[in-house]
Amino acid sequence: MHEIEIVDEYGERRPIQIPLERPLTLFIDKRELVTLMTLGSRPELLVLGYLLNQRLIQSVQQVAAIQVDWEVEAAAVTTRGGLSDLESRTARRVVTTGCGQGTVYGNALAQLDQVRLPDAATARIRQGTLRQMLERLREQDSIHRRAGSVHGCALFQGTEMLMFVEDVGRHNAIDTIAGWMAMHGVTGADKVFYTTGRLTSEMVMKAAQMGVPIVVSRNGVTQMGHDLATRLGMTLFGRAANRHFLCYTGFDRFDAEPLPPPANPVRVVSG
Amino acid sequence: MHEIEIVDEYGERRPIQIPLERPLTLFIDKRELVTLMTLGSRPELLVLGYLLNQRLIQSVQQVAAIQVDWEVEAAAVTTRGGLSDLESRTARRVVTTGCGQGTVYGNALAQLDQVRLPDAATARIRQGTLRQMLERLREQDSIHRRAGSVHGCALFQGTEMLMFVEDVGRHNAIDTIAGWMAMHGVTGADKVFYTTGRLTSEMVMKAAQMGVPIVVSRNGVTQMGHDLATRLGMTLFGRAANRHFLCYTGFDRFDAEPLPPPANPVRVVSG
Repeated sequence: MHEIEIVDEYGERRPIQIPLERPLTLFIDKRELVTLMTLGSRPELLVLGYLLNQRLIQSVQQVAAIQVDWEVEAAAVTTRGGLSDLESRTARRVVTTGCGQGTVYGNALAQLDQVRLPDAATARIRQGTLRQMLERLREQDSIHRRAGSVHGCALFQGTEMLMFVEDVGRHNAIDTIAGWMAMHGVTGADKVFYTTGRLTSEMVMKAAQMGVPIVVSRNGVTQMGHDLATRLGMTLFGRAANRHFLCYTGFDRFDAEPLPPPANPVRVVSG
Repeated sequence: MHEIEIVDEYGERRPIQIPLERPLTLFIDKRELVTLMTLGSRPELLVLGYLLNQRLIQSVQQVAAIQVDWEVEAAAVTTRGGLSDLESRTARRVVTTGCGQGTVYGNALAQLDQVRLPDAATARIRQGTLRQMLERLREQDSIHRRAGSVHGCALFQGTEMLMFVEDVGRHNAIDTIAGWMAMHGVTGADKVFYTTGRLTSEMVMKAAQMGVPIVVSRNGVTQMGHDLATRLGMTLFGRAANRHFLCYTGFDRFDAEPLPPPANPVRVVSG
């Protein structure tokens, strides 16, 4: 967090807090790959999750070490045996619609066809569970509440929040959760992923790569995110806050416990 | 726009509209550069603005033609004399914190030192003008109002809105405005740029490259966006909606017309 002075609409000068982002340049076996802008709360997990979600590595076993040095704003990744085809796999760039790391590599989309999510019989969510998730998130202290301008992600098992991460880009946040899952051998099949960001194709893809069948967003969906989730049999909830939500895809995983229809506005009869 | 069926918290199935994004792959002189996800409202202007804001071209005169073919989802850019050092200039990638095209090329940051914005004596904004801008934006019909999940940008001269663009990524929106300015020889010195997106370093950088000294956002600022704007002498307003705003930087361009301090909440005395 970083304090700055502002002037508001009342002409008042006062300090506010804003998120403190820093560049972190990734080197894989001494070769520069990319520079991420990040709050840097869990940089090693971010780096690991980034490599996994970009499909540059297939498992945490391929990584011998990740050393983050904020002095030089660098993360040095040492792999076991190197990544032979790194050049070719990072050659084709797709700039997509997400926040933050709006970039996925060409082969990731292709590899998606290998993703298999658990079926609707085993991976389901009740409306009451979704409501409790959203209540838990509302209670969560956050940088966003204090300073705004960040995105948050969370991983749930039932109504329990296993992890909550914020970063300047929602992709850093999901990648950090992917890195945490990989480090701890946590699988996605019985989890629900929450993001404050939009459900774009790349967010759906990353959740799928993490094996998570149910994704909830405070925000909306794009057409390609909707298409991809439909293709994958993933359940998407959007505009989710308090008791409200829209279930966009994968209705078959959702056990509705419908709220009573909204009451009509009270009519005040004068006289 | 694209219609899908959703289920809401009342168990009601109903159609809603979502933004229809499409991939558009840029080829410069037959060489593939990047694929943008876009609503595609003004694809030629988007492509031109992208090339300008990425500093891949310095002026519209370098472009002989931009041909968009949605059949093959491609934009073919023909340059005059080619871009000799395209390879080297697209080599270093920086994945930044913005929505959408979260990527700027290494040399853009360096070239920023050449940017000179008009001084505070000539480029100023009154609080009343800002309020009228925000009123004008509130009246604007938008995809966001109907479907959400998009970002909007606008270019103002005084209280007149010269252009309004929406796209799935806020970078596509600002790039489209940059393309429009370049095509029509519109300079930024006497303009104000509005975005629904966060004021990250790359948004500040793009506005600076467009020569716009005053930027307004409905959203917040990041520390690097704040730093860069301070360095450039750019005036940033955030959290701007209705009569509210925070002026983050460049107070010297701002003619405050402070609102009266907010009234205390009405105390209902019972009995």
